[in-house]
Amino acid sequence: MSFSNLDLVDECDAFPYYQVDPPLYVASISTYFELRVQDHDYAVGYMLPSVAEVFRNTPNWTLDDDERTLTLNGGSNAAERSQAVMRTLIAVRQTGHFKVLDKWRNELYPVYGKNKELLFNVERSASPLLGVVTYGVHLTAFVRTKEGGLKIWTPRRARTKQTYGGLLDNAVAGGIASGEGQFESLVRECGEEASLAEELVRSKAKACGSVTYFHVRSEKAGGETRLLQPECQYVYDLELPADVTPKPGDDEVEEFYLWSVDEVQRAMARGEFKPNCALVVLDFFVRHGILTAENEKDYIEIVSRLHRKLEFPTL
Amino acid sequence: MSFSNLDLVDECDAFPYYQVDPPLYVASISTYFELRVQDHDYAVGYMLPSVAEVFRNTPNWTLDDDERTLTLNGGSNAAERSQAVMRTLIAVRQTGHFKVLDKWRNELYPVYGKNKELLFNVERSASPLLGVVTYGVHLTAFVRTKEGGLKIWTPRRARTKQTYGGLLDNAVAGGIASGEGQFESLVRECGEEASLAEELVRSKAKACGSVTYFHVRSEKAGGETRLLQPECQYVYDLELPADVTPKPGDDEVEEFYLWSVDEVQRAMARGEFKPNCALVVLDFFVRHGILTAENEKDYIEIVSRLHRKLEFPTL
Repeated sequence: MSFSNLDLVDECDAFPYYQVDPPLYVASISTYFELRVQDHDYAVGYMLPSVAEVFRNTPNWTLDDDERTLTLNGGSNAAERSQAVMRTLIAVRQTGHFKVLDKWRNELYPVYGKNKELLFNVERSASPLLGVVTYGVHLTAFVRTKEGGLKIWTPRRARTKQTYGGLLDNAVAGGIASGEGQFESLVRECGEEASLAEELVRSKAKACGSVTYFHVRSEKAGGETRLLQPECQYVYDLELPADVTPKPGDDEVEEFYLWSVDEVQRAMARGEFKPNCALVVLDFFVRHGILTAENEKDYIEIVSRLHRKLEFPTL
Repeated sequence: MSFSNLDLVDECDAFPYYQVDPPLYVASISTYFELRVQDHDYAVGYMLPSVAEVFRNTPNWTLDDDERTLTLNGGSNAAERSQAVMRTLIAVRQTGHFKVLDKWRNELYPVYGKNKELLFNVERSASPLLGVVTYGVHLTAFVRTKEGGLKIWTPRRARTKQTYGGLLDNAVAGGIASGEGQFESLVRECGEEASLAEELVRSKAKACGSVTYFHVRSEKAGGETRLLQPECQYVYDLELPADVTPKPGDDEVEEFYLWSVDEVQRAMARGEFKPNCALVVLDFFVRHGILTAENEKDYIEIVSRLHRKLEFPTL
């Protein structure tokens, strides 16, 4: 089985597009409940009916079967709403009903409104249950060889990891916790995941855009399937000197390979990359003239889909 | 009046998004007719009713008021369909009905189907009447100064030009004619518009992605307004040596300025750039870490909207 680059995009950015197939989009969206916040007349997430059902008759929440909305009405500011969400999630976790909550992280993710205001924070492991947008940083570390070719530092995730164990990753990748700046998050992750010196990262890492997609969780992610994960990854490039070698700083990474573009492309085609990391590699290839209109037949579609306009407010 | 970067995006990528405001999108799309090709059950463009009306009772076309579709049914292959389109457009041009046809270019633009097959060619000046996707190349030429800052070669369009006269442009920009490759088109335009040597362009110009948007023509473009222009621009970067100076090769450009990022940003804020060229500059700023999540509050929205997933098949 060989995956085309568009196959890799399809796997990660899996939710249908209205502009491609209106009936399919409407049918798909209609199988979910909108997550709303009181006095805000728009969705901040989409939830499976089987998840929304658990919030029925729960204090601080209103489930409307006709409108197919679940509304958070506890609290009138971000702090109060966050507390209401946390209280519910702690209770839900105790029931053991959802597998994704078994990986409770004690880390808060932000959910924003249309004016980029913080609406509430949510425990990281619960964000796919609510179907809210989450944010992360992904860095591609590369070396320019004397012959002119690029080599890309490519880590393999520990085989013991519960999610996507043994798959290939970007040099550094992590979620942005509530209140943390994008670049500060990157600096922290570079130290934790690749043992890269703070000064090097601060002086050399370059912001290069964002990759956004609307993922539908499959078995690969572990836990419940069909949960929605709209995500935004801030992407960075870091050209490393030849004498700097990233080293796993925790037990999340098994080993770093220094691979040619060709080696990376072959591993992508074998489906060996974590799905969203494959998208970050594709974005890198596009920006560096490795994928072009001439050698990639799905160029325009791929470039567009790496930067999906999500149906929810984003930061 | 000062324009934010998002204002500049809004001006160019002006057609509503379904995922932001479904009723507005549906109401907007409903004011147009779908352009279709016989035996292909999807839109390849959207046309104003006042334009579609002109094709009523014309050989090779069927206007369906109930379905709000205009279908090209003359011809069973690209060559025959192109001939049918040309025959109609020559007749329409003779009536003097549409101002955009006064700028007849004798240049053919391709219209593709879902399998990336050529459906037909259309005279360039008529493409906004049909509302079909058009393709171009845009190149940003820049210099790295000794102090480390970037300077960007920025041409001012001749004030005598009928469209967007006197506005600022990208170093090189042009449409891709039917049958022409993207990079070959770029090489040709670099010679014609900036007098850049072919060898330099072939060895140094780097493909960096594509910028796609759904434009609604305003008075600025000249001719009829509210015509739809979904466009795809292949973007390239060219780092020029300090001793190479782009020179206008035809009468389309008045002068080239070598401007700092700050100078370019101020001209953008004054609204001095041709709308789609401003988007290419924004894409350059994103890819080069000039615009970041920290200094641009609308970062994610801007990055997404520079790469719109269009509602039509693209190459």
